[in-house]
Amino acid sequence: MVHFVETVGALDAWLTSVRASAASVGLVPTMGVLHAGHEALIEQARRDCEHVVVSIFVNPLQFDREDDLRRYPRLIEADLETCRRVSVDTAFVPSQTEMYPNKPTTRISVGPLGDHLCGAHRQGHFEGVATVVAKLFNIVRPQRAYFGEKDAQQLAIIRRMTADLSVPILIIGVPTVREADGLALSSRNRHLSLGERQQASALFRALEEARRLIEGGTVEAGSVVRQALEQIPREVGLRVEYLEVVDPDELQPVERIGGPVLVAGALWVGDTKLIDNVVCEPTGQQS
Amino acid sequence: MVHFVETVGALDAWLTSVRASAASVGLVPTMGVLHAGHEALIEQARRDCEHVVVSIFVNPLQFDREDDLRRYPRLIEADLETCRRVSVDTAFVPSQTEMYPNKPTTRISVGPLGDHLCGAHRQGHFEGVATVVAKLFNIVRPQRAYFGEKDAQQLAIIRRMTADLSVPILIIGVPTVREADGLALSSRNRHLSLGERQQASALFRALEEARRLIEGGTVEAGSVVRQALEQIPREVGLRVEYLEVVDPDELQPVERIGGPVLVAGALWVGDTKLIDNVVCEPTGQQS
Repeated sequence: MVHFVETVGALDAWLTSVRASAASVGLVPTMGVLHAGHEALIEQARRDCEHVVVSIFVNPLQFDREDDLRRYPRLIEADLETCRRVSVDTAFVPSQTEMYPNKPTTRISVGPLGDHLCGAHRQGHFEGVATVVAKLFNIVRPQRAYFGEKDAQQLAIIRRMTADLSVPILIIGVPTVREADGLALSSRNRHLSLGERQQASALFRALEEARRLIEGGTVEAGSVVRQALEQIPREVGLRVEYLEVVDPDELQPVERIGGPVLVAGALWVGDTKLIDNVVCEPTGQQS
Repeated sequence: MVHFVETVGALDAWLTSVRASAASVGLVPTMGVLHAGHEALIEQARRDCEHVVVSIFVNPLQFDREDDLRRYPRLIEADLETCRRVSVDTAFVPSQTEMYPNKPTTRISVGPLGDHLCGAHRQGHFEGVATVVAKLFNIVRPQRAYFGEKDAQQLAIIRRMTADLSVPILIIGVPTVREADGLALSSRNRHLSLGERQQASALFRALEEARRLIEGGTVEAGSVVRQALEQIPREVGLRVEYLEVVDPDELQPVERIGGPVLVAGALWVGDTKLIDNVVCEPTGQQS
């Protein structure tokens, strides 16, 4: 039985009783349209925590384009069925007016960690993410919170926010779940047509090529990126938004690769933006 | 006996044991140099809460000028003596490296509430205040936190942040404590020479004149400000930084006064900036 809660007040009352008996609460914040990637987060939370809360909230603060917000898929009945199947204890599904009864003026600003990768292309996106996550942390007050490594920049920013603001929550990153051809699971994949779906794994192939080059000793990031991009065919409907080599904590561009790096890319396939990344390092340096 | 704690880890361990028996923890965040204004905050916390924590931390993030940070008075021995006298339970006195072991990149941005009054004159000040207060909230996790009404813009911003981010803490504003001539108590008052001290109450007189005019029915804010400023003599060493009429929640300028307003001013007396404010409304409108 999933306990279904729609208001902050009801959640607070419910979790007060939960905390009296459960040693630990885990939070999996989502925007819904749950897939096997989310299930991996929930399963990890299930292993670590006595009580698992999944939040489902499509957060308007993190959309820079009104049409993207409108187009973002919503499938609440199927999501609750998924929650039941994977033994979520509590599903918190607030409305927009419940989360933002007044127009919020406070934002968490994320500094240089938001300057590159997706941050360079989606104005205010990570501010919106960090703000709603801080709010969900305050509402649920879990011991642990779970985020996918697929959204590497988001994960690094949440980790940094948590450290900088002394948020008493352990942040757990969970490895990306992929289709057989390497495509990272994403709620946005459902927008892909059959043809687009076949094109979509090119991003993964480019990232794997970058990994092969870096582990093989290529140190010049520009050269890695140029060769990796050759994996992405010059076809109609495919457009690389970025493919960058950055350091994994500060998310700043790396020119010569001398340690662990994050290689992250965004590929538009038709009208759908897909992102993915790998973390790798020169083989001699692996610890 | 005041329990004196210098690290986040030690505070966490101590407050875990405290929370097991105390029904409520109150936090009074300060920058030290405690005076009767702080004592009023502590006494209010003492009445409301079983356990009172006073934090003493001169927060570098909220100083826009290095010399102002360096010049800010520090009197830790006297402060601990004050804590003892007014029965503080815990004094949390972290070092800069304890609070910021790494250079923080996350900030709480406060939006339009920081655009006027002191916010217009101290770049990044309220971002720095909101950030350290959010951090102290996460470290101490009190049920209530106490702030002086003297710092009206700070109080409004903390209230807004707390609401916007669903911080589970009740924010209590405590009335300003004044000297016999009306001068609001402030740690900065100790910088005043004897002559400056005599000049300093001009700000209070100007604010009282504004109150008299508004309660008497003057609706044009510009006219209130012009007449109030006449209370401040044109003397060497006195300089008005601002005197503004704003609405008390959004802190945006009001032109025609039709309800409660915040009248706030900043007066430089020699090298010392003093601030003060009154909240008032046309008498017919008082509830």
